[in-house]
Formats: sequence, structure tokens, C-alpha cells
Amino acid sequence: MSTVTVPPSYSSLPFQDISVSHVPADSPTASKVLIVAFNRPDKYNAVTENLLTELETAYRMIDQDERVRAVVLTGTGKAFCAGADLQIGFSGLLANKESEESIAKYRDQGGRVALAMTNCTKPTIVALNGPAAGFGFTITFPAAIRVAWSDAKVGLPFARRGLTLESCSAFFLPRLLGLAKATHLATTGATYAASDPLVSPLFSKLLPTPQETVAYAVELATDIAENTSPTSTKLMRDLLLYSPGSPEEMHELDSKVFISMVGSKDNMEGIKSFMKKKKPEFSGSFDRESVPFWPWWAHAPRGNGDAIAKI
Amino acid sequence: MSTVTVPPSYSSLPFQDISVSHVPADSPTASKVLIVAFNRPDKYNAVTENLLTELETAYRMIDQDERVRAVVLTGTGKAFCAGADLQIGFSGLLANKESEESIAKYRDQGGRVALAMTNCTKPTIVALNGPAAGFGFTITFPAAIRVAWSDAKVGLPFARRGLTLESCSAFFLPRLLGLAKATHLATTGATYAASDPLVSPLFSKLLPTPQETVAYAVELATDIAENTSPTSTKLMRDLLLYSPGSPEEMHELDSKVFISMVGSKDNMEGIKSFMKKKKPEFSGSFDRESVPFWPWWAHAPRGNGDAIAKI
Amino acid sequence: MSTVTVPPSYSSLPFQDISVSHVPADSPTASKVLIVAFNRPDKYNAVTENLLTELETAYRMIDQDERVRAVVLTGTGKAFCAGADLQIGFSGLLANKESEESIAKYRDQGGRVALAMTNCTKPTIVALNGPAAGFGFTITFPAAIRVAWSDAKVGLPFARRGLTLESCSAFFLPRLLGLAKATHLATTGATYAASDPLVSPLFSKLLPTPQETVAYAVELATDIAENTSPTSTKLMRDLLLYSPGSPEEMHELDSKVFISMVGSKDNMEGIKSFMKKKKPEFSGSFDRESVPFWPWWAHAPRGNGDAIAKI
Repeated sequence: MSTVTVPPSYSSLPFQDISVSHVPADSPTASKVLIVAFNRPDKYNAVTENLLTELETAYRMIDQDERVRAVVLTGTGKAFCAGADLQIGFSGLLANKESEESIAKYRDQGGRVALAMTNCTKPTIVALNGPAAGFGFTITFPAAIRVAWSDAKVGLPFARRGLTLESCSAFFLPRLLGLAKATHLATTGATYAASDPLVSPLFSKLLPTPQETVAYAVELATDIAENTSPTSTKLMRDLLLYSPGSPEEMHELDSKVFISMVGSKDNMEGIKSFMKKKKPEFSGSFDRESVPFWPWWAHAPRGNGDAIAKI
Repeated sequence: MSTVTVPPSYSSLPFQDISVSHVPADSPTASKVLIVAFNRPDKYNAVTENLLTELETAYRMIDQDERVRAVVLTGTGKAFCAGADLQIGFSGLLANKESEESIAKYRDQGGRVALAMTNCTKPTIVALNGPAAGFGFTITFPAAIRVAWSDAKVGLPFARRGLTLESCSAFFLPRLLGLAKATHLATTGATYAASDPLVSPLFSKLLPTPQETVAYAVELATDIAENTSPTSTKLMRDLLLYSPGSPEEMHELDSKVFISMVGSKDNMEGIKSFMKKKKPEFSGSFDRESVPFWPWWAHAPRGNGDAIAKI
Repeated sequence: MSTVTVPPSYSSLPFQDISVSHVPADSPTASKVLIVAFNRPDKYNAVTENLLTELETAYRMIDQDERVRAVVLTGTGKAFCAGADLQIGFSGLLANKESEESIAKYRDQGGRVALAMTNCTKPTIVALNGPAAGFGFTITFPAAIRVAWSDAKVGLPFARRGLTLESCSAFFLPRLLGLAKATHLATTGATYAASDPLVSPLFSKLLPTPQETVAYAVELATDIAENTSPTSTKLMRDLLLYSPGSPEEMHELDSKVFISMVGSKDNMEGIKSFMKKKKPEFSGSFDRESVPFWPWWAHAPRGNGDAIAKI
């Protein structure tokens, strides 16, 4: 597992197909919130192999950066993300179909990004500022929160292209939206406005313009960055995702996680700040020492050095 | 496992308690959409053993019929389906209670129909044109999509009859509707209009009349039949239903399914038709050759010749 | 496993921090509905160790009391339940952190109450009459039904205190509300009105006043008490909660449960009363004889005598 280096400032990194900016923009060391944006506006932010590699790399850095507390993910220009760039197509993938062995070894690059977002200790808030199709839509599913411009169009066109759900979306979508709507979207392959009742339950809030959508996501991210413990939010996302199958087993697990946090630095700070009615000063890194048994699940997050962008 | 024979035309089959018709009605070989209807209108389409056997048989035929791309399920007359015919009752089932062994061997016939619908390669769109109770309601759950007449009454009266959820409904209902509403419906055993917020999330659309409900379902089925790959929609339903328990495991599975479809006949047709802005001509059969590892789950669909209607 | 004794009347029990009353109030032996209330109104019903022990004890008694058919859970005064009493704090828990062994052995007391409610044969209807925070909110999740005063404030402040989801809530919440909203609530740690779309799907009905909320819950509980079989509702809740992972496995399980109930006393009464259009007279105890294979899951409910209040 190769490691990534946390950069002094993200805005000066030589990313080509994404941009990473600080909130506030001019003080990288003081900013707890980053805005990560798909950045191929002349192509509706359609994804390339390089874009995916950059996105995965950015999430690996952010995971280890104790200054960062929350991420806003959005698109530059009018689109959020148009999905795969069909002008480039999938022909580059055909080499992976040579044998049963190569098929079994193949790992969808979109899924690698989805896992990097899932495993990142900092929560992502998606600001869906415009159209999102295919991967452009499925990559929003691992985020902690999604807000959307009411008129943004979304869709899963896989059934119309002879393809299937990717990027772990068959795991996330039924859990986020329910199996009824998930199956409807996958079966029709059609496009829906974010305000359509078939997709709107995915979004915590619908906003009247793309600008207000991004502003609201930044506001949410700032509230989370200033008032919550990254260790708490990460452990709770993991309890929700890597969840045993019965109330009794959850009782055993959540008892262990809860008692491990009782008396921890973040817990002491949380109670003290509440009693004194002050802003808390939580630690910015994930407190592994308090939860040495984390991760508690078998298919634990793994690194894979090959995918890290050389930047 | 006995096999079924695909008939030249479904409308001429000697079904007693269901009807199967073609869309358009007069050209069986050109029709990609079938309308399957409960057909005991003077009994509110209450089910009998024979009705269930016919329904299972129809689904087995449709599964193997490459002309058919989508099914609309509805009821003849004013009802969708009143569930078990209580005038006949359950006394015929008592023979299955002779011993612990016979109890363990017993398989609910409604559940057999639910599995035939679940495992059918063609998606079902339910047009809930009127009241649905018990099995009449639970049999809508394995469908890919449900649309309903706003005023149609639905209910799960099991708690009021000293019975329990059947036809795999305890699997489907909490996934489709959420555990809160599922438990409410099962606990009260009461009846609700399709437009009631306790059940309405099950339905992709509510329509003002039974006629418009059926028309809308046929429109959806036609869109699916003309524009989507049956292999894609079947594989995606299976990814959503036979789903591993973590994002990491889904990543392994969906990578394998996705790369298997890349470059397949349906994928080539899907991209070509999209680029040329033409209707696609997808293959009508499920492409097992592309996904030799399907089914990927342990409790795979099984046939059982005994239940096939002798028609 | 110690046993509890069913009391002649609950209203005369010497509970300190909860109250249990009969509906109708003056005839304990005729009442099928109990109202259990958090009863520390001057502390917004914040919980203490003793309150939790009393609540668990009450649920154990009710489980075995064949007179009782349904429970309404609410709060005395203006609050539902403020969660942990932070004036008392968590310092009493620190002794459980001495060693890895003691951490592994620790069982969250809120979770014990959640399991007592989950495993109780009688369904609980929550009447959320006022604010609910932390455990005060998570303890509503195992209930069969929740109704709420529209303006009641709810929240999961764990992220703001350096703590995590407890009382099996990471099991229940995503199943009740969907993963999108569950993750939103856990991540922000903020407070929401019951009518907010982020939490409202938890509630079967929103009422304009706290009084109407309790009245509606009592009405629902009475309908359930008078018209449903406790064996049916318990078995269906267990089918929904202790649920196998595929339609095929559910078919095997629900077939066995269903055929076991066919011809049972409650089933005979259910059909007879329906045919004669009379109120049914279902048995008040859970019919274990009909379902000797219950419980069918590995992590079955267990008793733990230590937690039973000495009253």
C-alpha cells in the first residue's frame, strides 16, 4: 500500500481534470472545508481514466489530512458529471476480457473512487449543480449527504447501452432510495429531474438554482466541520454500512464502539463545550487508539498503490 | 426440472383463471409486451390453486420466450386481486400439517409464483386497477415497477385472520417501502388507499382512473421493451436482489458483471444506436454466454416440474 | 434467566422514573392497552440508570402478561425524553473501560431496553408528544409504529458530543428511514422538527398537538388490541427483522411459518369472526406450540436477570 503526501495547499496541485479549492479560498491552512469539482466543463465533465485517478488520489490525501473536516463535491460549469466519455468509449477495457482470470481480476475504476469516498474519514456533501448520468450519478451515492438543484437531470442509462450498475451502486442505491425506486430507475434507464418523486428522496434538500445548491452544501459542510467529531461521524457511517444482520448483534457491536468513545478526548471536549455553550475543538484525525478493533468487518478497506496519480 | 413450451400465441391458450393478451392485440408475433390478468372477475379475482398454477406456468413460458420483453400484470373487471378465496378456505392445506417433516417440506404456492416473477428474465409492471388484499397485494412486490389507481384499496389482513406474511413478502416489503411502514401495515392488518402515504411509496405513479393506470403501465412496458436490453435489466435486478453485504464485496461483483457486458452484442448495439440516435435492436434472450458465472448466489432459482399446468 | 411476575395492576407498582397506566384507567383487568411513560418531567424525562432498569422490567412483565395486547410509549409533561442526563454524565461508565476484556463485556443499557421492546410479544406504538434527543429518539426505533406531534423536535447529537449511535439504532434507523436520511442525521448531529422531510417518514402520522398525538396512538393501539392476533403480529415482526437474505430463503421460512399458523386457534377464530362479521377473540399469549421452531435465528433473545428492577 503506497502512501500519499498531504500537500500544503490543494489549490496549487497540478490536477488536470478535477479542481480542489479551499473554503475560505485564500487561507489553505485555516480551511476545514474543501470543494472538489469535476473540471472538464467543455465535455460536461465526462470522466476519463485520468479524472478518476485524480479523484481517487485527492480522496486519499484528504483522508489523511487532519486540517480537512468535510468535502463538497460538485461540477465546474453547467454539468455535474456526464458519466463515461462515450467519444472515448470502453474499448480500452476490452484487454481485461482476455480470459476468465483477467475478468475475475478486473476492478472497475469508478468503484475504486466510490470506495475511496466511502472509506475517507471526512464526510462528503454532494452539490448536484447540473446533469448527472451513469457514473456521474452513481458516484454521489457513497456521499454522506446530497443536495441538488431541483431541475438537475439524473439517470442511469445502463439498460439502454447494454451495460449494468457499477461503482458499488447496486449496494448503495436500494439502501438510500428503497428497492422500489432503485429497480424502477435501473429498469427504465430513463432521465428524471432531481425533483421527481422517483429520485428526490436521495436529496436532503432541493434548491432553486445551481449557485444556491453549492452555497447550501458549503453551509452544511461548514456546520459539520465546526461542530462534529470526525471520529464520531466516521464510526457512525461505518456502523450504518458495515452493519451486522440483527438487533442483537448490533447491540454487541455498538456497545463496544460506544464505551470506547466514552471518556475519549473528543467525548470530553464534546461534553465540556456543550456545558459551557462554546464551539467544540475536536481533533481532526480519526482516533484509532480509542477503537483498536476498527475496522471490525472482514472486507476491510485496502489500499492499492497502482491507482495513485503521480503528481 | 420440467420445461415449458413457448406457445405461438398466448391469447389462444386454454387458461381458465388468468388471461394473457398481446400488445398490440392482433399480432402475437410482433408484440413485445404481454398483459397478464387475474381473470375471475365475479370473485374479485380471488385466487384458487389452479389460478396460481396457471400464473406460474405463464411466467415460465414468458421467461423463455425471446419475443417478449415486458409484462403488465393487472386484474379483469373491478378488482386487481382479492387474495385467497375464503369461501374455499385453507382446509386443503391441512394435510401438509401431518408431521414436522411435512411442515418443513411445504412450499407456499403464492411464494412459488413470486419466485417465478422474480426469476423471469422479463420485467413485470403491475397496473393496480382495483382492490388488492393479502396475496393480491404481496404478489405485486416482486415486480420491477408498480403503478396504481389512486383510490385502489390495498391491505395485508393476515394479523386479523391469525395468519402471517407469505409469498416472500417479508423479504420484499421492507426493502421496497422501508421497515417503518412495512411493520405498520403488517401490525394493523388494515386497508389503505394506494394514495395513502403509508403505501404510496410503493407506486411509481398514481393515476386518476383504473383505465389510465393500465394505459400508463402499457406505455412504460413499451418504452422498456423498445429501448432496454433484457440482459442488462435482468442482471441489474439480480445485483439489487442477490446483493453482497458490503461496498467492497459489491465492487468485486459488479466489476465482474460490468466487464462481462463490455463489448457484448447488446453493449455494441446500445452504443451504436445511441451514437446514431436510432432505436436499438437488442437481443430478446438473456445472454448467459457473456455471464457464465450467473447465477452468482447460493440459493439460485430452481425449477419444479410439479407446479407446471398441464395445458 | 430470572423471571418476572405479572402484577395484578401496573398502576400500583412502585416505579420511580416511569409510570404505567391502564386503558381504560379504572379497570386494570379489562384493559388490553397500557400507557408506559417516561416520568421525570422536571428533567425533560432525561434517563437515569434506574429509569432504564424500570423500563426493561416493565417490558419483561408485559411480554408475559396475556391481558395486555398493545403498549403506548410516551412522556409525562412537555418532553418525550431528553436522552442521557448530562448532569449525571457518563463517568459511571468509565469503570467498564479498564481492560479490553471489560470493554468487550460491556452492554449498553439503552440497547438492553431496545431489545426488550423488540422481543416483547406485544407491539409498541410510540406517541412522540415532545422533544426527543439521543436515546430519547433511538428508543422509538424498535417500536412497531410511531406517531408524532408535528412540532416535536428530534435529534441524534452524538457527533457533537464525541459519541456514537447506541441502542441498536444503527440497525434500525437505515431500515426505517433509508440510509440517505440516516447518514444525514448522524453526520450533522442537528435537531429537526418531526414534520421535517428528513425525519417525517419515521412517523405513521403527524398530529397538530401533543394531546391529539397520544389520543391517536391509543386509538391505534386499541384497534390492534381488539382486532389482531398477538401471535400473528409477533411472528410477522420477527419475519421482518430476523430475515434471510434472499427471496428463495424467505420462501422456505415463510412457508413453514404460514403452514404452522393454518388451522391454529387464532386462525380458526380469525376466519370464523370474519365470516360472521364479529369481533375476533384471539388468544392473548404467543402460541409457541404452533411454531416450535421459533426463534429460528441464531442470535435469539436472551434474558439477563441482573437488570430486572427489584420492585
